[in-house]
Amino acid sequence: MSDSMQIQPPVKVVEWIGDAKSGYLRLLDQTLLPAEKTFVDCKDAQTVSEAIRRLAVRGAPAIGVAAGYGMVVAAQSVPDGDDFLAGLEAKGDYLSASRPTAVNLSWAVKRILARAQRTVDADCDEIRRAILEEARAIHAEDEAMCLAIARNAAPLVERCSGVLTHCNAGALATAGIGTATAGMYLAHANGHAFTVYCDETRPLLQGSRLTAWELQQGGLDAVVITDSMAGVVLREQKVQMVITGADRIAANGDAANKIGTYSLAVLAKRHDVPFYVAAPYSTFDMSLASGDEIPIELRAAEEITDGFGRRTAPEGIKTYSPAFDVTPAELITAIITDRGVIEPVLTENVRKVIGKAGA
Amino acid sequence: MSDSMQIQPPVKVVEWIGDAKSGYLRLLDQTLLPAEKTFVDCKDAQTVSEAIRRLAVRGAPAIGVAAGYGMVVAAQSVPDGDDFLAGLEAKGDYLSASRPTAVNLSWAVKRILARAQRTVDADCDEIRRAILEEARAIHAEDEAMCLAIARNAAPLVERCSGVLTHCNAGALATAGIGTATAGMYLAHANGHAFTVYCDETRPLLQGSRLTAWELQQGGLDAVVITDSMAGVVLREQKVQMVITGADRIAANGDAANKIGTYSLAVLAKRHDVPFYVAAPYSTFDMSLASGDEIPIELRAAEEITDGFGRRTAPEGIKTYSPAFDVTPAELITAIITDRGVIEPVLTENVRKVIGKAGA
Repeated sequence: MSDSMQIQPPVKVVEWIGDAKSGYLRLLDQTLLPAEKTFVDCKDAQTVSEAIRRLAVRGAPAIGVAAGYGMVVAAQSVPDGDDFLAGLEAKGDYLSASRPTAVNLSWAVKRILARAQRTVDADCDEIRRAILEEARAIHAEDEAMCLAIARNAAPLVERCSGVLTHCNAGALATAGIGTATAGMYLAHANGHAFTVYCDETRPLLQGSRLTAWELQQGGLDAVVITDSMAGVVLREQKVQMVITGADRIAANGDAANKIGTYSLAVLAKRHDVPFYVAAPYSTFDMSLASGDEIPIELRAAEEITDGFGRRTAPEGIKTYSPAFDVTPAELITAIITDRGVIEPVLTENVRKVIGKAGA
Repeated sequence: MSDSMQIQPPVKVVEWIGDAKSGYLRLLDQTLLPAEKTFVDCKDAQTVSEAIRRLAVRGAPAIGVAAGYGMVVAAQSVPDGDDFLAGLEAKGDYLSASRPTAVNLSWAVKRILARAQRTVDADCDEIRRAILEEARAIHAEDEAMCLAIARNAAPLVERCSGVLTHCNAGALATAGIGTATAGMYLAHANGHAFTVYCDETRPLLQGSRLTAWELQQGGLDAVVITDSMAGVVLREQKVQMVITGADRIAANGDAANKIGTYSLAVLAKRHDVPFYVAAPYSTFDMSLASGDEIPIELRAAEEITDGFGRRTAPEGIKTYSPAFDVTPAELITAIITDRGVIEPVLTENVRKVIGKAGA
């Protein structure tokens, strides 16, 4: 096996360039994918905020890392003096408001502010250097989380000539090599040849726009299918495993993820193909006994009826558009986390790996 | 129950206007749906041929009816005289070539020519009147086929508050009230209130563009979902039956239909929701022992990667795009035909309803 510490993501999603005082945050602009690979250089808090707001950066882990560096950028324009910390807190409030539902965003901002508070006796430039150090630590922890998942998942991928995934739980959603994709990148680096079937993932097409693109950038063999084709891919035994990410996992292992994941799990079961969920420790919500308690957001009709620059359904038609579905633990072969593999997926095994409290 | 002979399709897909000598064929231009409801008046063979070629009219039954009337239009420009029949045959070859794989097209042309040949001692205008009569007979038989399916399917629909369908096996594919939709229109006419969930049906979106549109035109309650949402709709018990059409059915009842149908059948099974196929007698191919013998066409990558007027997958990406899948008989609760209901779906029961030879 190659040294997994050497595995680089196929593209730098989040990067800090320069020093604390005059450096800047470079973000891949994911809104232009897959047509254009363009970066946004964020040299002030407003540019960071706008990038987060318009989804130039997306995925909980990647947003957290971007927010950490965003605070370093913001600190550059806070004047030196006694009001420095108060000024930094105001910047933190401003950045956190860019996407109020993104938990990792406010988490990273708070962590940076705590570091600044611990450095309070130092001069302002020293605080700026300290928070860059903290932002780099958030970044490194995210890379390490991806690698830990990769080490658990790669041996499974290496048994397969084909794997199937849904949506984007990839490098583009993290600052590392992704969650569902982590084992794929490591298996590829280890020289294993295999094909990744990517569900396009309607309505927002994260699979065809993002996952297929990043795997292609990484030199992997990617094949795009519509979501409706997964059944045939499984039936024709083109894949020997299915692996997806998760948005939220309950204490019993029920996993909420992008709409369509549940159908994949049912189809995998019918064809005796193992169905894996890859997710960091932070995805578990041990306060929820089961997936029944996970609220499911309903999305706007336009994502279905106007998703591609032209109207594809009659005016005035109704839609039903749940953003997520919940895959019951009984359909999940194993949950692959950065802290270990949960298999079989039972409450007691979740507790063993994640602990009682969870994230 | 209302008199089902009174049930009109929500829109006239194919219509003959006027007499044999100076009348014309009016076709709904389905390429402009759902944005525009526009008709093409076909007053010469070339306009008919173009309409068939560019899919202004689609669906095997509707193409057959259009071809019948198309021959009447074509006969108007064949000069009177001894060469009339030869001239008509040449027009038949021309129309049949518009879409060589459409079996109903050449079938209808041959039937019209046979009628003309039987009328050979008459004068040319008498032949023109005779073939209009034959074209009207093809039309009436198609309407009757839809109604026969409707009578078998409506009682099932009337037990449901919601039904789920895939692709378009609707009025737009026939000259009547459709196949999968037939029972819905009759149940609606009978005053039953229910909701129809329409899978959008990637890649070509026949569900959102066509089925949702025609149901809306007919005053039914239609809801569009992405294909990936069907699992949740079934799980949440929003529907109590699934019904689709079929492109080809083998002697054992295995049914080929639009890609994604198989996945629906697997999901319906998991949730103990009955899964029905509605199809005319002519869909059965008794020369095929099972669905394994049905060839599956692979479609061009662009339907997945460029389906909506802009590129939604990276340049150079691979795709896998089967046009159809085969649902095994064991997953089909019943096949509803114009000649009776096949239930359970076993070779012996298919033979009882369809006969040994099939279509």
